[in-house]
Amino acid sequence: MTVRRRRPLYHSHTSPAFTKQRNPEMLVSPSTLNIAKWSRAEFVFEAESDPSHFTQSWVTATFSNGDDQKVVRGFYDDGGRFLLRFMPQSEGIWTFRTESNIASLSGITGSVNCTPAGAEATGPIETDETFHFRTASGKAWYPFGTTAYVWNYQSDAVQEQTLASLAASPFNKIRMCVFPKHYTYNFKEPQRFPFPGNITDGFDFSRFDCAFFHQLENQIDALKDRGIEADLIIFHPYDRWGFAEMDAETDRRYVEYLVARLSSFSNVWWSLANEFDLLRKKPMSFWDGVFKQITADDPYGHLISIHNWHNPPIHYTSNDHWYDQTDPLITHASIQHHDLWFVPGWREQFSKPIVIDECRYEGDVDCGWGNISGRKMLNLTWEGVCAGGYVTHGESYLSDDEIIWWSHGGRLKGESPERIAFLRNILEEGEAKRLSPWKGRSHSQWDVTIGHMGDDYWLLWFGDSQPGFKLLTMLPEGKEFAVEIIDAWAMTVERVTGTWRSGDRLPLPGRPGIALRMTAV
Amino acid sequence: MTVRRRRPLYHSHTSPAFTKQRNPEMLVSPSTLNIAKWSRAEFVFEAESDPSHFTQSWVTATFSNGDDQKVVRGFYDDGGRFLLRFMPQSEGIWTFRTESNIASLSGITGSVNCTPAGAEATGPIETDETFHFRTASGKAWYPFGTTAYVWNYQSDAVQEQTLASLAASPFNKIRMCVFPKHYTYNFKEPQRFPFPGNITDGFDFSRFDCAFFHQLENQIDALKDRGIEADLIIFHPYDRWGFAEMDAETDRRYVEYLVARLSSFSNVWWSLANEFDLLRKKPMSFWDGVFKQITADDPYGHLISIHNWHNPPIHYTSNDHWYDQTDPLITHASIQHHDLWFVPGWREQFSKPIVIDECRYEGDVDCGWGNISGRKMLNLTWEGVCAGGYVTHGESYLSDDEIIWWSHGGRLKGESPERIAFLRNILEEGEAKRLSPWKGRSHSQWDVTIGHMGDDYWLLWFGDSQPGFKLLTMLPEGKEFAVEIIDAWAMTVERVTGTWRSGDRLPLPGRPGIALRMTAV
Repeated sequence: MTVRRRRPLYHSHTSPAFTKQRNPEMLVSPSTLNIAKWSRAEFVFEAESDPSHFTQSWVTATFSNGDDQKVVRGFYDDGGRFLLRFMPQSEGIWTFRTESNIASLSGITGSVNCTPAGAEATGPIETDETFHFRTASGKAWYPFGTTAYVWNYQSDAVQEQTLASLAASPFNKIRMCVFPKHYTYNFKEPQRFPFPGNITDGFDFSRFDCAFFHQLENQIDALKDRGIEADLIIFHPYDRWGFAEMDAETDRRYVEYLVARLSSFSNVWWSLANEFDLLRKKPMSFWDGVFKQITADDPYGHLISIHNWHNPPIHYTSNDHWYDQTDPLITHASIQHHDLWFVPGWREQFSKPIVIDECRYEGDVDCGWGNISGRKMLNLTWEGVCAGGYVTHGESYLSDDEIIWWSHGGRLKGESPERIAFLRNILEEGEAKRLSPWKGRSHSQWDVTIGHMGDDYWLLWFGDSQPGFKLLTMLPEGKEFAVEIIDAWAMTVERVTGTWRSGDRLPLPGRPGIALRMTAV
Repeated sequence: MTVRRRRPLYHSHTSPAFTKQRNPEMLVSPSTLNIAKWSRAEFVFEAESDPSHFTQSWVTATFSNGDDQKVVRGFYDDGGRFLLRFMPQSEGIWTFRTESNIASLSGITGSVNCTPAGAEATGPIETDETFHFRTASGKAWYPFGTTAYVWNYQSDAVQEQTLASLAASPFNKIRMCVFPKHYTYNFKEPQRFPFPGNITDGFDFSRFDCAFFHQLENQIDALKDRGIEADLIIFHPYDRWGFAEMDAETDRRYVEYLVARLSSFSNVWWSLANEFDLLRKKPMSFWDGVFKQITADDPYGHLISIHNWHNPPIHYTSNDHWYDQTDPLITHASIQHHDLWFVPGWREQFSKPIVIDECRYEGDVDCGWGNISGRKMLNLTWEGVCAGGYVTHGESYLSDDEIIWWSHGGRLKGESPERIAFLRNILEEGEAKRLSPWKGRSHSQWDVTIGHMGDDYWLLWFGDSQPGFKLLTMLPEGKEFAVEIIDAWAMTVERVTGTWRSGDRLPLPGRPGIALRMTAV
């Protein structure tokens, strides 16, 4: 594993810097850590080495900075070490005090001096203006995700290649699993698992394999270094090891442990499951419980979602196999669907950001989810964005080495990524984009997805349609617009001569793959 | 108007052949008409010339042939003439006896000798095996419709061109309106209307313009001569003359008159409306009433449907703007929708043939419904057919003369018709096709629409997807299949060497537009 940890971990020990002390206000010790906002402090508390700590022991710390208070859960890292990690979200002195059912770990106090974030630091991603996202630092942020479910389980060489591919790609979020994946093209046995053991001898669900988690943490940090959010899939159904059917207490402890270990990582998102509705033994009430558990345990309020399998397959009027995406604990709807026509409806229905985390992948495998053309992948991405949503990329081209991006990472081979980069740049240049779908006559929009920001910025996507002209009836009266014709495939932007008004008849190329950008002048 | 009436109309007069007679059994007169099954007899009864007949007078006749009995409504054809038309559906002697509120027209008796249909005659189209159609003569029939809403209102030259285009096309059904159309590209004032009058002076809704109906009848016969069903749209919302907002009694009388005049035409289908939900002043109960009225009045049970405007536009879970297509009076669901993914669901939901009468048109006009590519039009047609439904074509290319097929007819310019002919031939060759959508794993069918007849015939459509191979998991165990790779655009059929079994890995071209035909050997 050659992923390097570039971000320093701040270690301190229970002695001598931190002493049992009943009065935390007194405790701004000389050894107070200086740590930039949204970075991670890690405290190491020593105890006897005993695997029963995994199930029997707990330690928490309450961090306070003025009125701001966070209760942070520590966790047992094996070998007699308890770790407790903290990500400060505001500047100033944070004091803390521990509690534990181990006497020596209870009442420990200390402090952290949170200094301003670096100019490049963004902090965690948050939702913004109901349907959109921003960085904690306040900048508009547009998810251009991709998917490589178990890149973290591949050889070091493939992992390095994945990170290099990501760094050169437009993608700023990756969907990835904690558990290994059992599925077509995914039958190699991993070397290490979240629990100690192997498929032959079984797993010890009363412990965790901490080396596995150290590795996962390095991978998440490596993503962070490349500006990529880790949309971490906590459960999934592609399983031969038993991780999809653990007992309720093991599930609970696993979720608790994961959140204790990882919530201090600023680039983590919680995805409760991929295709939760294929985890057939888990009832809806299970997912309700996990949402509550994570929301209670995560002091930082990371983005949290759940991802469906089923489209409405038979009766399009039925959506009872969709998790109730209106649940206020869900920060954004993480949807699988092939038809992005419905994005405006989902916005209205769910009142939160719509992220189509799967709408099929560019590729040529023998699976319905994985053989659309690069043009179709690009078409869907544009359509989703102009409808006021966001679309996650995936790629599944057949390969002799069976390293397929969608699952293993490796090398991107498709035609869509560079063109998705072109679209991302259109969103990122200039003022922050907060696109809403135009609520004009829906019928005329079979051929075009119209996104706009108020009256002054319009982004239209014609997709497969090929109009020979467009009446600019959507524009408000009394304003002049600069109009640019964008060829999304050729990645060209051509300014149309003059300025244009509501109702004007704009000639169009009459071929597929055309977008319009119209900006008030 | 140069459309010629090729089919003879059998005229007889009230005297001397038909006499008032109380005992119809006695009345096989020497002048009994000989008429082939599914042809049309027309009886002319004379009365005083008086326009009040349109509203005040009625005549019906009960036709009997053994136990078979039909009550047929006559109608006033102006100028003192009442007409009564009859289409026998079984061979033998049909006797009839009239009733009327005009004394001289009541109690008239006569007879018709129904002879066998000619070898080419098909009779009316009927539904068959829940989801399909056949001719009354018992042959499988596949709707490959097109749309030219008001071809019947165009100049004689354009009408002739339309009929020539249809004769050379794959289309065997046309959607057309009784009323003229007011809509973009449709602003010319017609010369004649179903009611006497004009837009300046208004219309006399207490009469009908019989010359208009004679012309319409010639047009329907001209379609019949070319093997084309007239899917007659009775109401529509594109109106500046007031036909969309007539009073309830005028609506009722108009429907009654239409059915009386046209139900004896073997190639008529009743389409209650195009985009009924845009006729905003007509409540659902109005349509319920029209279904009941036509079903009661049409002695022959012609196909009858109603066509929606709205897609589920916002909440995809809502379908309350769709007419209840499960109503047993509706023979087939005439649907407008852009996404044929839902065809299998509609089949289950409605349990009747699914005809997508609008899924957008090939063309380049500035309207969402009218600028898809020829490839997309073809893709939709294949998708609908392989899903066990049927798809209606349309074409709307911009034209200097503003003669656009979708509305005016004229000349077909698109790339899809010849390729739709190729598909129609695939259905028509060999045994009757009764395709059902395969109920295998729906998820894997994002890339392919799988139609089949039992175990032995499979037709797969990959559309935009581009798999590099296909595992033939859908085939039943223990059978061998001949496999053909069809390029729907190039219109080629290539037999793959050897025979194939369930689970085999079939190499595919890895490009869009591919179908597979697999037949048990």
